[in-house]
Amino acid sequence: MNVLICNVGSTSLKYKLFDMDHGEHVLASGGAERVGTDKSIFNHRNNISSTAWRNDIPMPTHREAISEMLEALLQCAVSSLDEISCVGFKVVHGGPVTGTQYLTEDVLRTMESFNSVAPAHNPPYIAAVRQFRELMPDTPLIGSFETAFHSGMSPEASLYSIPLEISRKYNIRRYGFHGASHEYMTDWVSETMGRSDLRIISCHLGGSGSLAAVRNGVSIDTTMGMSLQCGVLHNNRIGDIDPYVIFYLNEKCGMDLPDIKQMLQTESGLYGLSGGISNDLRDIETAAEQGNRDAETALNAYAYTVKKYIGSYAAALNGVDAIVFGGGIGQNSSTIRRLALDGLDFMGIALDESKNLAALAGEDISAERSHTRIFVVETNEELVVARKAMQLLLRNSTHR
Amino acid sequence: MNVLICNVGSTSLKYKLFDMDHGEHVLASGGAERVGTDKSIFNHRNNISSTAWRNDIPMPTHREAISEMLEALLQCAVSSLDEISCVGFKVVHGGPVTGTQYLTEDVLRTMESFNSVAPAHNPPYIAAVRQFRELMPDTPLIGSFETAFHSGMSPEASLYSIPLEISRKYNIRRYGFHGASHEYMTDWVSETMGRSDLRIISCHLGGSGSLAAVRNGVSIDTTMGMSLQCGVLHNNRIGDIDPYVIFYLNEKCGMDLPDIKQMLQTESGLYGLSGGISNDLRDIETAAEQGNRDAETALNAYAYTVKKYIGSYAAALNGVDAIVFGGGIGQNSSTIRRLALDGLDFMGIALDESKNLAALAGEDISAERSHTRIFVVETNEELVVARKAMQLLLRNSTHR
Repeated sequence: MNVLICNVGSTSLKYKLFDMDHGEHVLASGGAERVGTDKSIFNHRNNISSTAWRNDIPMPTHREAISEMLEALLQCAVSSLDEISCVGFKVVHGGPVTGTQYLTEDVLRTMESFNSVAPAHNPPYIAAVRQFRELMPDTPLIGSFETAFHSGMSPEASLYSIPLEISRKYNIRRYGFHGASHEYMTDWVSETMGRSDLRIISCHLGGSGSLAAVRNGVSIDTTMGMSLQCGVLHNNRIGDIDPYVIFYLNEKCGMDLPDIKQMLQTESGLYGLSGGISNDLRDIETAAEQGNRDAETALNAYAYTVKKYIGSYAAALNGVDAIVFGGGIGQNSSTIRRLALDGLDFMGIALDESKNLAALAGEDISAERSHTRIFVVETNEELVVARKAMQLLLRNSTHR
Repeated sequence: MNVLICNVGSTSLKYKLFDMDHGEHVLASGGAERVGTDKSIFNHRNNISSTAWRNDIPMPTHREAISEMLEALLQCAVSSLDEISCVGFKVVHGGPVTGTQYLTEDVLRTMESFNSVAPAHNPPYIAAVRQFRELMPDTPLIGSFETAFHSGMSPEASLYSIPLEISRKYNIRRYGFHGASHEYMTDWVSETMGRSDLRIISCHLGGSGSLAAVRNGVSIDTTMGMSLQCGVLHNNRIGDIDPYVIFYLNEKCGMDLPDIKQMLQTESGLYGLSGGISNDLRDIETAAEQGNRDAETALNAYAYTVKKYIGSYAAALNGVDAIVFGGGIGQNSSTIRRLALDGLDFMGIALDESKNLAALAGEDISAERSHTRIFVVETNEELVVARKAMQLLLRNSTHR
């Protein structure tokens, strides 16, 4: 069974074609960038023949990117679209609609009703899924919601303290995201440690970041909330903030609500706090090394927030057996890992700094004395989505 | 030197007259309630003669309450207003204006510019101080700002990740409040333990609550932010919430911004989360004991938030020598203390539950094995303000 997994961004489309019957191999992969501009780029890589190419062609919408992808797949990976059993999407926010779902028009409409809190994520997915439906009318389109992994959170961890009837009426709660990544990383830790009864803090840190507290495979808390604009700092999206700053900006500084929202989701996070140096932590690390104090503040604030959440979730879990770092920053920044874990010996967490500096994905970087094991992993969200999409297809064919 | 300390609420005025030269004794105390209604009540207590009385008289504004208080003081505590060296106020939010200050019109106008984030606190203080100025034109009026104790926070702990130039231009940052209480409680711990090089988590939990992480007497982090409507749950004010809930309520649920703001500061917190049972934790504990599940959620959510902040600040401080509980809830609810500290043995924090149940103010309720000492104290914010007001007066008279 071949499963095509597509990640949709506002100006991008990335894909991987998995052969699920033979070691979950990736047959082909690629992506389109700068969709919606006249400088679009299309990349494709065929893993069977080890060939790759790049096309610089205008892609005014995702529709052209999808066509380009399908053409590339037909050219080298499959002989007909029938050989693609389904397309799986790592969809973001469906509010109460979660888990793994056929992406019917009903489901898309429910997603639309949460556009307001996932403005950078939901609209491009919804539009792209509709374009897929036109271009691949006979192929099941399946969504695995990023919220699913966190759906077991208790009311005390997930409810905000607005009036309860408002929360219930409008489905307002902490949902949490990055579910596929947290699931992959915590499963990996369980397999590696050979146990499932574990208290794990999972740190998915990248352009978009979140931590999750996971007990026996169940997420009991996570740093993202109703929206993806909270918790740790993101590349250009806001992390935690006192909500009254919004009222202050509106009442006192004369900004209107759409402008404030735009600022929180495009000019904030690492980019905002560093004074506009970059939305990429690597640039900020470099600037900090060169003595830029705003960069240093942004770097330290990032690590400090992660550290505080680690302490917080260690308390929530009543102790922690393992901490796992993944995502672009989590996997690659030894600086963030060092700063975030510094001085936590008192709770049994100790890093081996030489292992940390040289860490490769899959390694344990904890010190011998550490009660908590500390891992670095390469997360694989697409594989999780591919497995879930296949499970839904198989379950469905069994039921028929 | 006699110092009069006044606490101003939107419908209340409380006062204590301290004799600072003789053991910081309270000569007289009292207060007005339901100011602004025709059912106002005035209470006065004279500690010298151990007499007390109550007057049920209409007080349409704070002006009448102030007059009533001055009359009562002249009747039994002082022979002339000249014997009151100054009036001290625990003022709330002056943004960049902090510390202890003469409450000039300039200072009041700066406070006004932060009304937007302290809507329940700043306006009544500002109005009352102006009325005091009319009624006591020759008496120095001194404010000790609730933010002062937290003014040493680092940029990484205090800045939000909105664009840095916006934070700087409009003085947007985490300020923190309850400074007088955190200062009193952590000073008390230092004196009791005979050391000042301590890492203390101070929990001021009451109708309004906050925690502070204090290292060597300096607050390095605290749960309240730019406003007093964040952090742990308050009686009817919101605690931490994803700011995008505001956009969602506006865009999706059709609520306008003033209504949302009103909801967050009057119908949220313990009151909102319990489904409107009460804004008083004691009622919620009782309802939870009787099996009300919403009350149970609110109670658990309260304790869970405190627990997570304790873990968070323990990490920020790289270990914790003492935790201190004060405020109406902190001092009196053994249930909250038990739930908040449950399962923290792994980081050296262990409660003695029998001591906890029977705790009186001033007691250590930690278990023998606990590395962290745990105290219950009766906070005394007025005394802190009285001392600071006196210091400013004395400094000023020396300089003349």
